[in-house]
Amino acid sequence: MSMSNGSDRLFSGLFACGGAATAVGDRALLAAMLDVEAALARGLASVGLIPSEAALTIAAAAADPDAFDLAELGAGSGESGTPVPAIVAALRARAGDAGEYVHVGATSQDIIDTGVMLASRRGLGFLLADLWGAGEECAKLATEHHSTVEIGRTLLQHAVPVTFGLKAAQWLSGLDAALAGLVQARDRDLAVSLGGAAGTLAAFEGHGFALGRFLAEELGLAPAELPWHAVRVRPARFASALGIALGAMAKVARDVILLAQTEVAEVRAGAGGSSAMPHKQNPVAAVAVVACADRAPGLVAAVLGSMAQEHERAAGGWQSEWRPVLELVALGGSAAASLRQLLEGLEVDIERMRHNVGLTGGLAMSESVVVALAPAVGFGRARELVGGAAREAAGAGSFRDALLSLPDVAAALPGEQLDQALAPEHYLGAADALIERALAAHRALAVEQR
Amino acid sequence: MSMSNGSDRLFSGLFACGGAATAVGDRALLAAMLDVEAALARGLASVGLIPSEAALTIAAAAADPDAFDLAELGAGSGESGTPVPAIVAALRARAGDAGEYVHVGATSQDIIDTGVMLASRRGLGFLLADLWGAGEECAKLATEHHSTVEIGRTLLQHAVPVTFGLKAAQWLSGLDAALAGLVQARDRDLAVSLGGAAGTLAAFEGHGFALGRFLAEELGLAPAELPWHAVRVRPARFASALGIALGAMAKVARDVILLAQTEVAEVRAGAGGSSAMPHKQNPVAAVAVVACADRAPGLVAAVLGSMAQEHERAAGGWQSEWRPVLELVALGGSAAASLRQLLEGLEVDIERMRHNVGLTGGLAMSESVVVALAPAVGFGRARELVGGAAREAAGAGSFRDALLSLPDVAAALPGEQLDQALAPEHYLGAADALIERALAAHRALAVEQR
Amino acid sequence: MSMSNGSDRLFSGLFACGGAATAVGDRALLAAMLDVEAALARGLASVGLIPSEAALTIAAAAADPDAFDLAELGAGSGESGTPVPAIVAALRARAGDAGEYVHVGATSQDIIDTGVMLASRRGLGFLLADLWGAGEECAKLATEHHSTVEIGRTLLQHAVPVTFGLKAAQWLSGLDAALAGLVQARDRDLAVSLGGAAGTLAAFEGHGFALGRFLAEELGLAPAELPWHAVRVRPARFASALGIALGAMAKVARDVILLAQTEVAEVRAGAGGSSAMPHKQNPVAAVAVVACADRAPGLVAAVLGSMAQEHERAAGGWQSEWRPVLELVALGGSAAASLRQLLEGLEVDIERMRHNVGLTGGLAMSESVVVALAPAVGFGRARELVGGAAREAAGAGSFRDALLSLPDVAAALPGEQLDQALAPEHYLGAADALIERALAAHRALAVEQR
Amino acid sequence: MSMSNGSDRLFSGLFACGGAATAVGDRALLAAMLDVEAALARGLASVGLIPSEAALTIAAAAADPDAFDLAELGAGSGESGTPVPAIVAALRARAGDAGEYVHVGATSQDIIDTGVMLASRRGLGFLLADLWGAGEECAKLATEHHSTVEIGRTLLQHAVPVTFGLKAAQWLSGLDAALAGLVQARDRDLAVSLGGAAGTLAAFEGHGFALGRFLAEELGLAPAELPWHAVRVRPARFASALGIALGAMAKVARDVILLAQTEVAEVRAGAGGSSAMPHKQNPVAAVAVVACADRAPGLVAAVLGSMAQEHERAAGGWQSEWRPVLELVALGGSAAASLRQLLEGLEVDIERMRHNVGLTGGLAMSESVVVALAPAVGFGRARELVGGAAREAAGAGSFRDALLSLPDVAAALPGEQLDQALAPEHYLGAADALIERALAAHRALAVEQR
Repeated sequence: MSMSNGSDRLFSGLFACGGAATAVGDRALLAAMLDVEAALARGLASVGLIPSEAALTIAAAAADPDAFDLAELGAGSGESGTPVPAIVAALRARAGDAGEYVHVGATSQDIIDTGVMLASRRGLGFLLADLWGAGEECAKLATEHHSTVEIGRTLLQHAVPVTFGLKAAQWLSGLDAALAGLVQARDRDLAVSLGGAAGTLAAFEGHGFALGRFLAEELGLAPAELPWHAVRVRPARFASALGIALGAMAKVARDVILLAQTEVAEVRAGAGGSSAMPHKQNPVAAVAVVACADRAPGLVAAVLGSMAQEHERAAGGWQSEWRPVLELVALGGSAAASLRQLLEGLEVDIERMRHNVGLTGGLAMSESVVVALAPAVGFGRARELVGGAAREAAGAGSFRDALLSLPDVAAALPGEQLDQALAPEHYLGAADALIERALAAHRALAVEQR
Repeated sequence: MSMSNGSDRLFSGLFACGGAATAVGDRALLAAMLDVEAALARGLASVGLIPSEAALTIAAAAADPDAFDLAELGAGSGESGTPVPAIVAALRARAGDAGEYVHVGATSQDIIDTGVMLASRRGLGFLLADLWGAGEECAKLATEHHSTVEIGRTLLQHAVPVTFGLKAAQWLSGLDAALAGLVQARDRDLAVSLGGAAGTLAAFEGHGFALGRFLAEELGLAPAELPWHAVRVRPARFASALGIALGAMAKVARDVILLAQTEVAEVRAGAGGSSAMPHKQNPVAAVAVVACADRAPGLVAAVLGSMAQEHERAAGGWQSEWRPVLELVALGGSAAASLRQLLEGLEVDIERMRHNVGLTGGLAMSESVVVALAPAVGFGRARELVGGAAREAAGAGSFRDALLSLPDVAAALPGEQLDQALAPEHYLGAADALIERALAAHRALAVEQR
Repeated sequence: MSMSNGSDRLFSGLFACGGAATAVGDRALLAAMLDVEAALARGLASVGLIPSEAALTIAAAAADPDAFDLAELGAGSGESGTPVPAIVAALRARAGDAGEYVHVGATSQDIIDTGVMLASRRGLGFLLADLWGAGEECAKLATEHHSTVEIGRTLLQHAVPVTFGLKAAQWLSGLDAALAGLVQARDRDLAVSLGGAAGTLAAFEGHGFALGRFLAEELGLAPAELPWHAVRVRPARFASALGIALGAMAKVARDVILLAQTEVAEVRAGAGGSSAMPHKQNPVAAVAVVACADRAPGLVAAVLGSMAQEHERAAGGWQSEWRPVLELVALGGSAAASLRQLLEGLEVDIERMRHNVGLTGGLAMSESVVVALAPAVGFGRARELVGGAAREAAGAGSFRDALLSLPDVAAALPGEQLDQALAPEHYLGAADALIERALAAHRALAVEQR
Repeated sequence: MSMSNGSDRLFSGLFACGGAATAVGDRALLAAMLDVEAALARGLASVGLIPSEAALTIAAAAADPDAFDLAELGAGSGESGTPVPAIVAALRARAGDAGEYVHVGATSQDIIDTGVMLASRRGLGFLLADLWGAGEECAKLATEHHSTVEIGRTLLQHAVPVTFGLKAAQWLSGLDAALAGLVQARDRDLAVSLGGAAGTLAAFEGHGFALGRFLAEELGLAPAELPWHAVRVRPARFASALGIALGAMAKVARDVILLAQTEVAEVRAGAGGSSAMPHKQNPVAAVAVVACADRAPGLVAAVLGSMAQEHERAAGGWQSEWRPVLELVALGGSAAASLRQLLEGLEVDIERMRHNVGLTGGLAMSESVVVALAPAVGFGRARELVGGAAREAAGAGSFRDALLSLPDVAAALPGEQLDQALAPEHYLGAADALIERALAAHRALAVEQR
């Protein structure tokens, strides 16, 4: 039996949806590192440190990552602490006479850091597209359901009415904030790392800054004012932004799972069946989002926990950071793809929402009645009266009747006025305006950042 | 024996330096929540929802947090899930006839969220001042030691020379990036939370947006476009920024601890003595920074892990977020105070740095020799020659002699040129320019953000 | 306004229920450390290293922790890295002529480690009592409701029937496993730490082992074969056991929150009210358990993350470990107290459970029908037939009718037999036997360990 | 370019040493799940629920995991939430007429949980062998270096003397405690999971317990009294034990990295070279151990954080737990292999240790002098005298001279006696006895558990 090391292939539908996971896999990471070596060679040629033809030969030799033996490179990482010496050796071998010009002036960390950033940027593209797509679906739901009354739930108990449109607008606001954070991280934190052996750029003989700029332009990464071999704010910020994005997505997915419960049934979310139980409608995509997100905080913690990197290059902390960062990209991308699919297929049961609002027999409107009563009897007295009626009705009977049986209430809120105070659709506050705010912010984000 | 619940009083010198810890302690948090209730009352009066005199009375009643019984309020949190109903009851009692106008239209979460943000902002002020102060010390060290040669260390092995000024500049770049992140979080994420029972602002009868703006101005917090009761990007971003700042500080402290080792002795950092061992110079302030920072990733993970908050208010996730956020402020503030003190008192031993550079007998200059040789013999051959000489010298004997015994080297780098290639001060690359970049960025930060 | 540092007083009802939080608070930790110094003095006297009267005087001076100034001791921790030198100085001052015999041969870490363990053991006593109490309630529920049919839910969708008794038995099995783990940790990991300055016991002049045994007996802690100043398996195991216990408790609480949802309503769990919404029955105690538990994984991670402690005493990792360990005790104790209270007051609505089982119109019995059909038609065909009927019924109409309309089914399961296959109470498998197993294990635990 | 999803192939020398990583990779996990289906079929046949020949056919069809298409199964996980339905379908197709007897009565979770446990147990075998091997090396070092004097270091400052043998014995005690914990977890927590659709074993028609026992025996896993679909103490305990083991290993590796520093040079640990810096001796294996360990706390936190699993099967928490558990096995196994290799190749420089002990000019012996002086002058006076001399000597000059210049000292400790008090080899306390204790415990562990 042939066995490869661990990966998420067996669970790819849960943890490797969309293109991000592949874009940060080991083959793609190798490709990114080879791209860095090729760009470095071109840069070295552009400043005259190596011959131009050598750069062309190196770039050609670096263009086919499949020509490299991952197992051999992996073994090399155990000898040198990184696979870079093995990659450089293999690339030199493939580059023939130009081989001696490979990796000139650079250090392993330059290649790995820049390669991780480059692969991350490629993976992030998929993530952002799907996250934006998920946001678009929320925007549609917010628009379409701006007057779909739904019960608001706090601590999973009925509270006061909201609209499903407002809930979707809230989802949207979280996804958009997450997206803005990732865009900021992409443009600021996904940077070239170039410092040479100990971060002085000494072996580049005065061309270090020019080379840094060249690499940034060639690779489409942010430039870095200083080498950051042992100052890890960049990966930490990027990892945090990914963790936050996964949290924002999980909020949506968890709400959907709760709304899809058999007893609640306000939405249907996916057809994950069960062979033994054909009636089940498992919300698989939502579960996938939550499962991806549940793995994130520990990965972010690993990146943060490795920030105290010793001197000019760390002995452990740096090495421990690579996989958590890349896994966060993969999980974030997978969650975004699942979330988008989830929202695209979401079926909303407006009737059921309406039905559920009434489950407490009007008690969910008690705050509304207090507000309506207060002008006549004052806040304190209004709270007392309504509280008493609610307690009476909670035992049995009708809240409306209990209220009307109180002379003060009957006087202040005769029939129709009480009914108005008890009507959920009349106690939605600023729900519409809030939806409008979320949509406006979403449109602004579209203009600014995409 | 009277016992209070856990706190950091017994270890305050390690975990509660500076003013931040006190500013987010429970008494201060209560004060912040009372400030929120007072501002809410003023706001309600300003839009005509309650009488102006009532607002004045409420504000007066809220002005003395010491008049409230923390134990009683704490017990109330067990009955209601938050201490706010107990706070409101106590405040109403103190406000007499105006009592019924306390907390009108608001929900517990409005008060706690805004109170946590307000206390955090107060604590953050201390943190930022000390973090800036620590950066200033790094800037001084970078300037003063721009030509102090020190060995660069990777994986805790001697690599190639750097300057201590560059190391300090790297520290500075990390602290400044952390500070910029905290300032961004302060101005964007430390926001008013106002939504009412389920986030619709319904009980504010159309004045919700005006009240939100009023609270932001009164309390000096950022406004929020939408209520964020269950969309927790704000606390997550703030917690991440704190975690990153603690990581950036720990990098400095860890370097100092390593430099202060008895065998390295390049710096002296503090006089933490030992009664039994009077010779010890424990780097206590640096240890305090590391100890604070080591607690951070788990706290950030707790905040991120609680982001999937259910529906309109969470049953557990929200409540679990309060203390980790406030602890991160306290630990960040304490670490910043310790770091500033550490750097202010740091004694640098230039002679020892110079001495340590030479410990490998010139082998740390091998890359420099390769670079010097390459124009004559090519990179490939240069690497071979130097590698051979280094292996020979590593056994015994002099690296210089081993090099000179090679005809190719002797021809390419006669006497003086080889000595130049072996001189650490001639192989510092862009160290000075990098220091200048870090200092320029620091000055720009000063202009922009303080 | 007087402000103390952060603590959980303001939220004590959520995070400091029961006695554990107080038992590990800073005053109590000081008391524990003073107890260690007193026991050490008695031990030193018992082996003849100090005069017996001195030991008596020291013990008397250490008996009143309230006589010590926490603020002063805390400040001392900033000078020395631990508060122990300040404690020793204060204790010496109080002990007069016997003062010079305080702390003989010991190092700060001996006192702190042993003190943390002692305070933890005291706090753990409360935790274990409440955890046992919560288990007892589960055992009662499991017994009482062994035939209360409830729908089983997977991925929050109706699956097949279970009993509420089985659910309670599952809860019990988790709590008992957690309790067994804590008892093991108590008896193995809560140990004396005694090593002297660098773990050789050198200053005890050959009496080190005897002193270790003496301290273990006096303080009721486990003995340690070797000093463990920098080998932190003990705190790591203890922290993990606490984290696992919090997770096991959270499972129960989360189930309760879900069962208490307005739409599910199978249990009522507490009366956490809302002033604005008098109808609400917030499950506050369950929320408190979840909120405590959500903070745990990050704290455990902090302890695990600090295990790589340098040489004979760490510079940061050790110091960072104290509070997370003690907080885990406090949170575990608080969660246990809340959980016990929650379960003691849990109201179970048997009728509602029965009602909810039927919500899918019999589809939850599809597996049961497959099992009943298989002998006649084979598993493959049975799955097909039932799946088809279920899909038909899911659209509209009756599952029973859909089944009976299939000739194969009608032949194999005529009327009464089909009704039996569709009766939840006939498809409970080993539920009763499983309950019995959980109860038997619980009784065995009672015999063994309490 | 062909790209597979992420894995550790490119860094296998750091994160996938030894056999554990492969044993828990996706192909191996599939193999384990197929083994579970095969064993289930045999069990079903043994109790008469399916034909014996069908079981044979199924087992044969399950014997070749390479015949299954991982990509297809992975895609299936996105449809069903687990790959099990796709695995079952593929297995049924391969089993022909016996196909309908595949997976009878079981649920996806039974297969995945048991499969994860089985793969974990296989991976753990490699881990335990290497961890034991590493312990053996520590035992050798402890024996060989029982009288090799080394300076004890606290907070990375010289403290009092120890022996390198004692340091190795401390390492051993940590590794042995970790190993014992893993063995306990293996025998108790790596258990069969069998419950059927909602944990009642209903579809096994009374044979559930017998089947559970059968599976445990066939697969070499622990039996489980109750199904544990949603009570996750087992994976949590196992993950914690792995996290603790990684922490215990990291302690050793970090010490080695520090001892191998160019300035300390007490050990040489591996030949991880650098092409640019041929003199470097990077401690790659030690770095690999630390890097593996740094990733662990976050993974343990993820497992603990997913314990609150809803009802009879979780919607997210369960799914998020698989990879962290398996990654911990892979990382633990890789770290153990690296650590063993590190210790097998460790070169100890006894002379350098001796040299370093003297770096403080005798100040490291100050506690020893206090102990020697106390009988004559009392503890208080002895501390004063020695402290004064130490402060004087710290400025300049000889500690011995400073001591002898004090009449009290000269009188109490004439020449030779003072020299004895200043001799590191005479102030080693119980070092030898402690080594013996560690070795005895190690031998006992060998007898008990292997």
